[in-house]
Order: sequence, then structure tokens, then C-alpha cells
Amino acid sequence: MLKIGLDAMGGDFAPLNAVLGAIDASAHKDIQIWLFGDREIITGICNNAGFDPGRFVIIDCKDNILFTDHPVSAFHRKRESSIVKGFQLLESGDIDAFASAGNTGAMMVGCSLTLNMINKISRPCISVELPLINGNKVLLLDVGFNADCRPDNLLQFGALGNIYSKSVLGVKEPKVGLLNIGAESGKGNLNVKEAYTLFSEGSDFNFIGNIEPDNIFTDSCADVVVTDGFTGNLFLKQAEALYNIVCKREIEDAYLSRFNYELYGGTAVLGVSSVVIIGHGRSSSAAIANMIFKAESVLKSRLIENFNIFA
Amino acid sequence: MLKIGLDAMGGDFAPLNAVLGAIDASAHKDIQIWLFGDREIITGICNNAGFDPGRFVIIDCKDNILFTDHPVSAFHRKRESSIVKGFQLLESGDIDAFASAGNTGAMMVGCSLTLNMINKISRPCISVELPLINGNKVLLLDVGFNADCRPDNLLQFGALGNIYSKSVLGVKEPKVGLLNIGAESGKGNLNVKEAYTLFSEGSDFNFIGNIEPDNIFTDSCADVVVTDGFTGNLFLKQAEALYNIVCKREIEDAYLSRFNYELYGGTAVLGVSSVVIIGHGRSSSAAIANMIFKAESVLKSRLIENFNIFA
Repeated sequence: MLKIGLDAMGGDFAPLNAVLGAIDASAHKDIQIWLFGDREIITGICNNAGFDPGRFVIIDCKDNILFTDHPVSAFHRKRESSIVKGFQLLESGDIDAFASAGNTGAMMVGCSLTLNMINKISRPCISVELPLINGNKVLLLDVGFNADCRPDNLLQFGALGNIYSKSVLGVKEPKVGLLNIGAESGKGNLNVKEAYTLFSEGSDFNFIGNIEPDNIFTDSCADVVVTDGFTGNLFLKQAEALYNIVCKREIEDAYLSRFNYELYGGTAVLGVSSVVIIGHGRSSSAAIANMIFKAESVLKSRLIENFNIFA
Repeated sequence: MLKIGLDAMGGDFAPLNAVLGAIDASAHKDIQIWLFGDREIITGICNNAGFDPGRFVIIDCKDNILFTDHPVSAFHRKRESSIVKGFQLLESGDIDAFASAGNTGAMMVGCSLTLNMINKISRPCISVELPLINGNKVLLLDVGFNADCRPDNLLQFGALGNIYSKSVLGVKEPKVGLLNIGAESGKGNLNVKEAYTLFSEGSDFNFIGNIEPDNIFTDSCADVVVTDGFTGNLFLKQAEALYNIVCKREIEDAYLSRFNYELYGGTAVLGVSSVVIIGHGRSSSAAIANMIFKAESVLKSRLIENFNIFA
């Protein structure tokens, strides 16, 4: 049975939403959920919800990394926190995946300090699956781990995205593009221009050139879109802006409703040798449940094994 | 009477849409429109539309800079083109403004080679007014002239945007923010972090800090949002993606319909001592008419004079 660790203390509305999300997830899937957090609080929430806490494995954590904590120093200082303990048990193999909606910086630090990197990959990144109008998804990466990237980092993200698209999204020959302000090869800033050359000459995936954002959702031109973590995070937040408009204007549209961040279920960290999922700080219990499902589907896709075969 | 020059040969559907847009604009406003292009073709389109071509001033141009032309070499080589002649008559003062939906690169070259810069500004930029859910607009700049920017360029864009917001949009004390992936001061890539310091220490406008895209339209947090031309162009194109979705899904919403690029009416070049408007390559005749109205409103706002007073 898959063992999925969840940071019960992570997120703006934790531990309540985290535990309720775990309860919800455990009702739907045949997985073993390990909750990292204050045992007394977790047990209390379970009892209030009429759920037997004995169905979880609870790892009692007496400390918690807050959103306001500095990631590196908190990771070194708060050894009893849910995030530090989660990475310890992931690294030791006690759990198969670890998911958290907590301090993203601390999750980055945990990946870097605790886990091995995939061969030939120098930096981890995070990705998001965004909905296309034709029902498919496009994978965008990096969406926030690396605000400053070199062109060779982008090339590595392309390789990671290619394997993710095949393994998790089931795309046979993913079309990989570079996010850019024009379709032609000479367009963009210096970084993207240099990346274009690297992608054209040195990639072992199907590079199809530059992708402009205006038709990205409606023309389904690419399966994987590569960019730096600054640009990608802005892109993701603008997609969230779209969903915020939909909510405020009370627009009912089946396609636009798929931009609801709760459905993403968090984003997988790519480039490390274990399955780590990062959720939205604002995660509702439904978002937490989807984050756990995401961990399960990434594990079942054998993504990590495929990285190691192809890389 | 204001004399507004229009590149009749500029845009994917020129000269037809350009001339029809000019006809439309001249019916609504008391302005003198100067058309730069092939006299015979322009006259033919007017006659077909039952419009007296004598109501325009036509500057016969025997050449045309195409979208596929290299901007710098074309500007030097094609001296009889509509864009080169437009800049010549703008510089000489024969016309008060020049607008084109043609080759943007050639328009950039024209600004740099022909026009004087505003005092203390080292690079021109372009801006776009995007609709807010409360009915106001937010000014975003640069949206494409400078793919690579230094932090001091961003500071200058902030100064330009501040004066534009006051002069053209009538905002008394514009709130100026930096587009970024987090609200806190330490967030972002190296360029934006350094810009944050410059904005905090050295700006003579109301700097309110970082602006994240997710709430930019719904929370109306800023009047002016500053970014580099690469990021800004991607942001603008993603806003166009939003409108493309609205069209494809046949969503009827009064707010979302304001994202129709035809309503923008082009973007003013900021930083040069004359009024230059750049339109969308795909401009319809309605978009061309709005581009002419934009030129008129910028002229009437006395933007250039205000730049020179404050700069």
C-alpha cells in the first residue's frame, strides 16, 4: 500500500483543513496517509469529524515552520517541525511521498538538503498542469523555484517536463516549447534567445519553438511550456487572476471553472529522486485531498523511475 | 485643428482596414487625418466606401516596411515608406501625432532615430491600459519595447507611468507598483529586487511595493504597474488569451468584453517628445479608429508637456 505523508500543519487554514482533507482522501483511496503534526490536535479534529484517527499513521511533531519563518534557518533550527520530519521519513523510505501546503521556501530547502537530485539535473523546479480548451492539459515549468535561471537550467526543465508529460499525462511524443513574446527564433530577452539555441541544438525531446501566451489555452500548440521561475510564477498567478474574475463576476463556464486552483491538487517538485508535492498556501480541504491524490498518481506513474531511465 | 498621421499601409489587413478606420474616425471627431500610403489605393478605398478622399491629407508613399523586414535596415533603406515619412513629418511638426499598426520594430527605430527623448529618460517604452473590475484602468509598462531592462530603466518607466496616469487617466496620486511574484521586499529575481531598492529610495512618485498578478484586476491595488518589456509583453498576451477564451466559449460578460484588444486603441510610446501610437498587427477598422482617438486623447491630455515639466 502506498504511504503518503502529509504536513498536517502546512497551509493558511491548517491544521483543520489539512486533516479534513486527509479524512476526505482516505475515504476515496486505498492509501496509507501519514500525518505530520501535533498528535493531540490531529486526534481532536478527527474525533470531532467522527473519524477514527487510528486509520492514520500520526508522526507527532512538536514544532512548525511558519510562513513568516526564514526557510533555511527554520529548516536548520526547527528539527521537530512537520516539514523537517516529513523529509527525514521520505529520505529514509518510510513514506513514498511527502506533500505540504506550508512554507514553500522550506520545502525547497528540504528538497535540496535531504534528497538526491536526478542525474544531470542541477536544480529542482515546480510545474503546474493548466487546462486547455480542448480538455487536455499543458504543463508549465518552472513556476516558482528558480527566479533567476540560466539557459542550461531551462534546457533541463524541458527534459524534466518531457518525461512528466509522458509519464503522468500520458502524452506519447510531447511537444515542448519555450514561453516567449514572439514565434520567431530571434525574439525574446537574452536568456530566452540563448535557450532557444540550446533547445534547437542539444535537446533530446521534441522542441517545437517559441510559444506565445495569447493562444496557449485555445490552440493547444504545446504539451510542455518551459520558462524561468519568475516568469512562470507570474503566469500561474495571472491564471489565478482569471479564476478570481470568474468568481467575482459569477460566470458559469465549464472550461473556466477548471482554473480553480483547488483542482490542481498541488504541484510536483521535479528533479529530485522522491515524490514531493507542494500545495497552495490557501488550500481548502478539497485542495488538500487533491494534493494527496496527486501524490498517488505521480507515484503510480513511476515518474521517478522514468527520470532515472531517461536522464 | 489637431493633425493626426496614420500609417495607411500598417497592419495585417492594411491598407483596407486602416483607411476604413480613418474614415470611421473622421466621422466622429473634429480632427485632420493625414494618411501615409499609396495615394491611388487610398483614393480607391475611399471612393468604394462613398467617402470623399479630399477630406484626408494624403502623403503619397511609394514604399512600405513589411512585417518580415528587419526594422533597422528597412528604416534606413526604405526612405519612401509610410513609416519613415510619418516620422519625418512628425519631427518637422507638420503632424501632431503618428500612429501605425505596422512593423513595431521599425516604429521603435523611428522613435530612436528621429525623435528627441524626454529629459532623464534613456529608453522609450510602451504601455497598455488594462480594465479593472471596478471600472477603472491599470497602466502596465513596459509591454514590449525593452526585452532586457536594468533596474534604473524600470525606475524611469515608473516615472513615465506616473505622469501618464495623472495626465491621461486623471488619477490624482497614482499608486505605482512593481510586478512581482511576492508582496514582500525580498521577493523576485535579481533585477526586480534591485529595482525595489531603487524605487524605495529614489522615486519621486508614490511607490506602494510589489504587485502580484492574481489580484491585479479584482483588487485594484495599483494604478501603474512597472515591469520589463519581456514580462510585460507576456502579461499583455496572457490578457489577450483571456479574451480569446471568452470569444471561443461565447461567454457574455460586460467586464470580460473590455479585454477586447480593439478597444485599447493602441499603446502610446512613452519617453519620446512626440505622440506616437502603436497598434495591434491584427487591427480591425474599429481598432484603427480607436488608435486615432487614442492619439487625440493623448494630445489633449498634454502628456508630452507634462513629461517635460516634471522630468
